[in-house]
Amino acid sequence: MTNRTTQVMDAIRHMIAERTLLAGERVPSIRGLAAKMGVSPSTVVEAYDRLVADGVILSRPGSGFYVANRAAFTNLRPQATDLDRSVDPLWVSRQSLDAAHGVLKPGCGWMPPDWMPQAAIRRALRQISRSDDALLADYGSSRGGQDLRHLLARQCAEEGLPVDPDMVLLIGSGSQTLDLICRLLLRPGDTVLVDDPCYFNFQALLRVLGVRIVSVPFTREGPDLTAFAEALRIHRPSLYLTNSALQNPTGATLSAQTAHRLLLLASEWDLTIVEDDTFATLEPDLSPRLAILDGLQRVIRIGSFSKTLSAAARCGYVVARPELVEALTDLQVATNFGGPSPVAAEIVRITLADGSYRKHIVATRTRLARARRDASESLERLGIVPWLMPRGGFYLWCQLPEGKDAQSLARTVLESGIILAPGNVFSAAGTAGDFLRLNVSQVAPSIYEELAKALRTVA
Amino acid sequence: MTNRTTQVMDAIRHMIAERTLLAGERVPSIRGLAAKMGVSPSTVVEAYDRLVADGVILSRPGSGFYVANRAAFTNLRPQATDLDRSVDPLWVSRQSLDAAHGVLKPGCGWMPPDWMPQAAIRRALRQISRSDDALLADYGSSRGGQDLRHLLARQCAEEGLPVDPDMVLLIGSGSQTLDLICRLLLRPGDTVLVDDPCYFNFQALLRVLGVRIVSVPFTREGPDLTAFAEALRIHRPSLYLTNSALQNPTGATLSAQTAHRLLLLASEWDLTIVEDDTFATLEPDLSPRLAILDGLQRVIRIGSFSKTLSAAARCGYVVARPELVEALTDLQVATNFGGPSPVAAEIVRITLADGSYRKHIVATRTRLARARRDASESLERLGIVPWLMPRGGFYLWCQLPEGKDAQSLARTVLESGIILAPGNVFSAAGTAGDFLRLNVSQVAPSIYEELAKALRTVA
Repeated sequence: MTNRTTQVMDAIRHMIAERTLLAGERVPSIRGLAAKMGVSPSTVVEAYDRLVADGVILSRPGSGFYVANRAAFTNLRPQATDLDRSVDPLWVSRQSLDAAHGVLKPGCGWMPPDWMPQAAIRRALRQISRSDDALLADYGSSRGGQDLRHLLARQCAEEGLPVDPDMVLLIGSGSQTLDLICRLLLRPGDTVLVDDPCYFNFQALLRVLGVRIVSVPFTREGPDLTAFAEALRIHRPSLYLTNSALQNPTGATLSAQTAHRLLLLASEWDLTIVEDDTFATLEPDLSPRLAILDGLQRVIRIGSFSKTLSAAARCGYVVARPELVEALTDLQVATNFGGPSPVAAEIVRITLADGSYRKHIVATRTRLARARRDASESLERLGIVPWLMPRGGFYLWCQLPEGKDAQSLARTVLESGIILAPGNVFSAAGTAGDFLRLNVSQVAPSIYEELAKALRTVA
Repeated sequence: MTNRTTQVMDAIRHMIAERTLLAGERVPSIRGLAAKMGVSPSTVVEAYDRLVADGVILSRPGSGFYVANRAAFTNLRPQATDLDRSVDPLWVSRQSLDAAHGVLKPGCGWMPPDWMPQAAIRRALRQISRSDDALLADYGSSRGGQDLRHLLARQCAEEGLPVDPDMVLLIGSGSQTLDLICRLLLRPGDTVLVDDPCYFNFQALLRVLGVRIVSVPFTREGPDLTAFAEALRIHRPSLYLTNSALQNPTGATLSAQTAHRLLLLASEWDLTIVEDDTFATLEPDLSPRLAILDGLQRVIRIGSFSKTLSAAARCGYVVARPELVEALTDLQVATNFGGPSPVAAEIVRITLADGSYRKHIVATRTRLARARRDASESLERLGIVPWLMPRGGFYLWCQLPEGKDAQSLARTVLESGIILAPGNVFSAAGTAGDFLRLNVSQVAPSIYEELAKALRTVA
């Protein structure tokens, strides 16, 4: 195939990507395009034949060539990236979710089943099995169960953030909560700020939405404010997405001064902030929180029970200004005809109401603290050093010994049935090539042995 | 406020809507815009002040005016329409979902709790409460439980559509299934064909996605093929969305000839079809189905258990070509970190595997047939006539007596605590002003009395 043929094919693909040519539209005539591009008609014919074979255009005999509908495209993956799959957020997510039984996941983002409140969940399920017919069969209300929203509103009030239950919306999951907010507030081409490093599925989601991702280095006290201010000035982002309590993956906690100054910058640059509180209950005590300081003027609080109660009963929530909750409710009804599965939401409500969730969290904090100490000792023997010791949670963001590369390490131990989370999957800017995120509830002696072995072999 | 000021405000709003001006961008200078529009600078100043008050732009002292981020906008409702709310799909959906206890919903889209398989659901919940820790706490796999996918694949095979379990994807709900497919295959400005009349939440969803809706009149055997061919020729839609078995709201069943000719047209015009099978199990026997005839080349099958098993355990599915399932799985992971709540999916799996779902469906068909006969007798006494007698399901699409308007009727009976579903909420083209969708499992003697009373008073 000649260069000229490729040029013609690229020109057509480009017009489709830029939406100068829409699905179903007739593509330029062979002679017309040949004249315009200064090539022979036979070159255009060859290019069109190849585009037909690729399913990009189709031929309507006697009528010409037309842009095919997307369903004919074989490459439908959302925003295919050139990333090595070991640091491709989507690949890492699917590997973790779909790993065969027996595969170890010391970097994954959840605790093992035996760390979750099994007895409480089982008791809740039995209670639900005895509930009213309506709970077991009906659609939930558009905002999700009122009782659970009241409980969440009361928790906010106890933290110093007084909210109405009508400022709380239940959604199908924490991830879906973020997706809905982004669909409402963002358009393709908008810019979103994230931390460097940040939760990798934030990046996968933002790519699906076609928004531009700009990352700001994260310090041990929150985002680097100088870099943050610069990013605001240069990129004029619409949104900033972060965790303040036990940031994923670093485990860092926002300091009061950083929180306050961050909000001043947000006000100056009209920035909306989404603060994901999913790990917050694992803190020993309440740290500075943007939503609480700001009173939900420009901060939107989101959370989920998947990490601290059960990922099998998906239930997320958002706390925000009433008009935002109203618009999100409409969007939730149009796209999902309601919120979380009422059965799932009821599991959450029961365990919150009967105190079993709280009891479990208190015990888990202690268990995690011990596991964190043990893990960091074992890791330091291998020369793997936590960047900071988190106040809570299950993550350790660790730096490898000098000269070691996390992706190489991950590829090596994959052969021994271990899935690691190499640093650059969390860093859109690629600054964490020598870091790993580890989960102290998922590590075991065998993992340290494999890591030691692998460290000796890799570059 | 002068016309000129309004013109300037409209010009800026238009530039924002057309994305000539993006969020965070500086708007034209006062003098520059004044010169360009042939107005005085003070007119532009007044217009900008009002736009600031409306939250559309904001002033950065010493720097100028900038487009505000959307979060500052108070009107965030997705695609606000000018429709009267009684025929606004979103309003009708929220009314039905959030109706207070005791409000009657004879037009709603689900059966009452006592029509659903309560005993089977309770038994399933008890069984789940005794399951492995992993089922109760872990995230589900990216495609949803393998066993359930096998069961669904086998059902397809029994209908004459041989599929691999890997061509089946479990998703959080039927609505979410459609949303994911549309997000993958459509872009704003694309055209989608729907039936006239069709399920109203299809319209709410398509508006959220910014696609153009073109409707084709539905006959007692499927879409009007002449009108369908014309719509294909004129509008070049990407997608057609329909139910073949027990169409919502008419209850009609696709005929074999219409099915076959429809697929020929789809092939000629490169049309992708989404066939929603949500009500299909309520048929007495298998009717012609586009997915089965087409073998999933250009037809995508979707379904859900919310209408026939439980809306409290949300679980939807799609059956499609492997590359489509693969892309949808990626999209599901990025936007929801997985599929349905594993607990919800397990309720479905258990009731399918132990035969209780099938037993319930067989009994429900009989119960619905009786209710349909009773309802149509009672309605005909009021001069309300079903457009056709469906082979199954719970809907009756009924025409009011001559000269009666369904919206007026709906407004009247709302005062008596009854929510009706007036025809034009199902008709994007507004052709069903004298129709109602009724649900034979949700009607009662008191409703016929109220309808009779209201018919005497309304125009």
